[in-house]
Amino acid sequence: MRDVKSGIDRSEINETVQRISCSLEADDMQRAVKTLLALHPADRALAFSALNVQERAQLLARLDIPTTADLLEELEDPQARDVAETFTNERLADVLDEMEPDEAADVLGDLSPDRAAEALSAMEEAADVLPLLPHDDESAGGLMTTSFISLHPDQTAAEAIDYLREVSPGEETPYYLYVIDSASRLIGVLSLRNLVVAPPDAAIGSIMDPDTYHVTTQTDQEDAARLMVRYDLASLPVVNDLGILSGVITYDDLVDVLDDEATEDIYLLANVSDADLGIDSSLMLSIRRRLPWLYLSALTAFFASWVIAQFEGVIAQVAVLAAFQSVVAGLGGNTATQSLAIIVRAIALGEIDRGQSIRTVLKEGATGLIQGIAVGLAAGLGVYIWQGNVYIGIILALALIGNMLLAGLAGAMVPLSLKALNLDPALASSVLVTTITDSVGFALFLGLATLFLPHLIQT
Amino acid sequence: MRDVKSGIDRSEINETVQRISCSLEADDMQRAVKTLLALHPADRALAFSALNVQERAQLLARLDIPTTADLLEELEDPQARDVAETFTNERLADVLDEMEPDEAADVLGDLSPDRAAEALSAMEEAADVLPLLPHDDESAGGLMTTSFISLHPDQTAAEAIDYLREVSPGEETPYYLYVIDSASRLIGVLSLRNLVVAPPDAAIGSIMDPDTYHVTTQTDQEDAARLMVRYDLASLPVVNDLGILSGVITYDDLVDVLDDEATEDIYLLANVSDADLGIDSSLMLSIRRRLPWLYLSALTAFFASWVIAQFEGVIAQVAVLAAFQSVVAGLGGNTATQSLAIIVRAIALGEIDRGQSIRTVLKEGATGLIQGIAVGLAAGLGVYIWQGNVYIGIILALALIGNMLLAGLAGAMVPLSLKALNLDPALASSVLVTTITDSVGFALFLGLATLFLPHLIQT
Repeated sequence: MRDVKSGIDRSEINETVQRISCSLEADDMQRAVKTLLALHPADRALAFSALNVQERAQLLARLDIPTTADLLEELEDPQARDVAETFTNERLADVLDEMEPDEAADVLGDLSPDRAAEALSAMEEAADVLPLLPHDDESAGGLMTTSFISLHPDQTAAEAIDYLREVSPGEETPYYLYVIDSASRLIGVLSLRNLVVAPPDAAIGSIMDPDTYHVTTQTDQEDAARLMVRYDLASLPVVNDLGILSGVITYDDLVDVLDDEATEDIYLLANVSDADLGIDSSLMLSIRRRLPWLYLSALTAFFASWVIAQFEGVIAQVAVLAAFQSVVAGLGGNTATQSLAIIVRAIALGEIDRGQSIRTVLKEGATGLIQGIAVGLAAGLGVYIWQGNVYIGIILALALIGNMLLAGLAGAMVPLSLKALNLDPALASSVLVTTITDSVGFALFLGLATLFLPHLIQT
Repeated sequence: MRDVKSGIDRSEINETVQRISCSLEADDMQRAVKTLLALHPADRALAFSALNVQERAQLLARLDIPTTADLLEELEDPQARDVAETFTNERLADVLDEMEPDEAADVLGDLSPDRAAEALSAMEEAADVLPLLPHDDESAGGLMTTSFISLHPDQTAAEAIDYLREVSPGEETPYYLYVIDSASRLIGVLSLRNLVVAPPDAAIGSIMDPDTYHVTTQTDQEDAARLMVRYDLASLPVVNDLGILSGVITYDDLVDVLDDEATEDIYLLANVSDADLGIDSSLMLSIRRRLPWLYLSALTAFFASWVIAQFEGVIAQVAVLAAFQSVVAGLGGNTATQSLAIIVRAIALGEIDRGQSIRTVLKEGATGLIQGIAVGLAAGLGVYIWQGNVYIGIILALALIGNMLLAGLAGAMVPLSLKALNLDPALASSVLVTTITDSVGFALFLGLATLFLPHLIQT
């Protein structure tokens, strides 16, 4: 046997890329193709992506249809589209026929409508792909595959196994078999395991589980994913408005959705508005997706500057205030970021519902208040010792308590409000919240300083 | 058939909790239990958690062993431990016997060593659980289950199916069957699907795939999860140092690891150091896990204050500087946060390797520089128009360009360095990076202002 493997790391892939480049340089096409094919399909896609445009074209010309189909399935969507665009219509149709229907539909959806229509008309298995095309990419319909196995309730277990042998299911076919009535409506589910261990003459209808979870084609993909996580489902049937079984979402799609969802939340909290952005993205794309947020931040920072500028006279008299105003704003921001992360994550994991919102906001407010008292007293004492003026200490402590209370409230209220408005709770949350904690933090600290001004000048 | 379902939402669970409370109030135990049992086990755990301590105890006394085992499997670890602690030794052993071995091991690991030893000695199936106990919670050994099915290469397909029927695998048994040699070493894998469609007299050794991915019991759980994601594996065998098959990680464990990993990264970037913290956590626990980070932030904020205080004299002369220093620090922080999010996520998804580090740092630096020029010019122009002094504009623009360049570099270097030191790249990243961007931002802006001081006072 070949050695059992625990996956190869990136440096091994990089070496393979080097070897392929050398073979191509030496015009040894056969060796180049062989080196690529020695990798797992998932790793082939990584290696392929690391080659330059010319090298890719040279290789593609030598790959057979099934290998090309595997490659396109594993490539990221924009890269798969780039490859597909280089093919003749006939070759593209052959490759799409060979691909899993949901992956083929993704490629077709990324091509120009004309090109997609041409390819479809040349395909033999267009019927599998056509029903997948109209669905929103982010919906259960856009995630499902039409390559599933359905049984009828009056078949016997033995007949079902013979049928399985006959259709010889492909790699992605799920481990659950779905039972449909004469109108193709979903009426039950049967695990492959239960089919195998059932008596050969048992009717499918008697061994199936009639109590099966499902979603509709319009269900948001994250809701579908959360349902699978919650009930430990390896696959989830998708029905249309008439209850007709339209497709199946499998656990590998679920995993992709979970990863995308997490990336999206992490990015949005950091004000990066494109979950497809990665370390390999081009500099231009990166800047296009990040710069608008920085302009927005600059605008809100100028608003905070305007707040500070209102106290120019006070600062001119007690310049050291300028050194501590940022402590108040910064710790407000930190407190709010903590609340934001916890609330955004709870929403993503489906752990929060409408009834809990007020309780959650109050709890975050209480957390902010208690943390504000704890940090405020310590910081106030510290600044009193440093500056030798008890009033600066008192002002700093009071401003921290007020701003951190507000930070807890805002850190919970902003994402919950965005969610209530059906917007992404992470979208712009951090800009909104820090605008509040910065402006109020500066106003509180400098406002209190104005009140205590006589005591501050005496120092 | 019962209606097909698409999962119930939290408000329905809350209603169920209400109904259970009322039944308990009215001493109608049977009705209370029946209401709970009508829910899916995953939802039962949610409903159970929402009851108060007394209500839980009343219900627990009425649940049979298998139902209690299901409940413990679905509860969060600390809650499962709390429940387990209330049981007599005999009852606890019965419940643990009924649970999946990996879940039972988790409960035992959370109990006091004495209590765990007592329960183990009273268990009938302690042999399944014992091998799981010594493993680190975060390792593949801590994640795997010992309930898997292994075959020998000289069995026939028909014999294997008979064997399956005989052992009648439980719910969590994976859909892959593992083939071991006479020394119990892993030598291949066979999907249930391929077993079913194989000729009945085919030898397992001839239809198995000898080329199977595996990890060892010490492999980090996130590495194991990433391997499963990369190669679309529904289950992953775990071997010990001798190559002996010790257990299997299934896709539902994978999903839990991915969710935990994402929560951990989102929390750490927001300086919340406990991924178990959620909206339902107690106020005290919440504060205990969040406050230390705020104290650390306060310390670093005071360092930034000290930097500003060095320029007290300049600020006293041109107080409006205090209004714009925060723009420089804030935008540096924003730029760094963007880089941080992208790098931390790339590391989590395994998309970065050592060779790429320098390129990545340079790219983030370039992004920071270009964004700094774009924002710096706009902000400088804005402040010139607002304040009517071109020098403040120039100072602000230069300080922004310098700080945002640094922010890009630091946002990439800090997590990559932490990773190189085998620390979590998200741990303390944001505190470290904002300390740099704040301090340098203030120093740059106020330092430049000191150089240009004569031009600023003239206004």
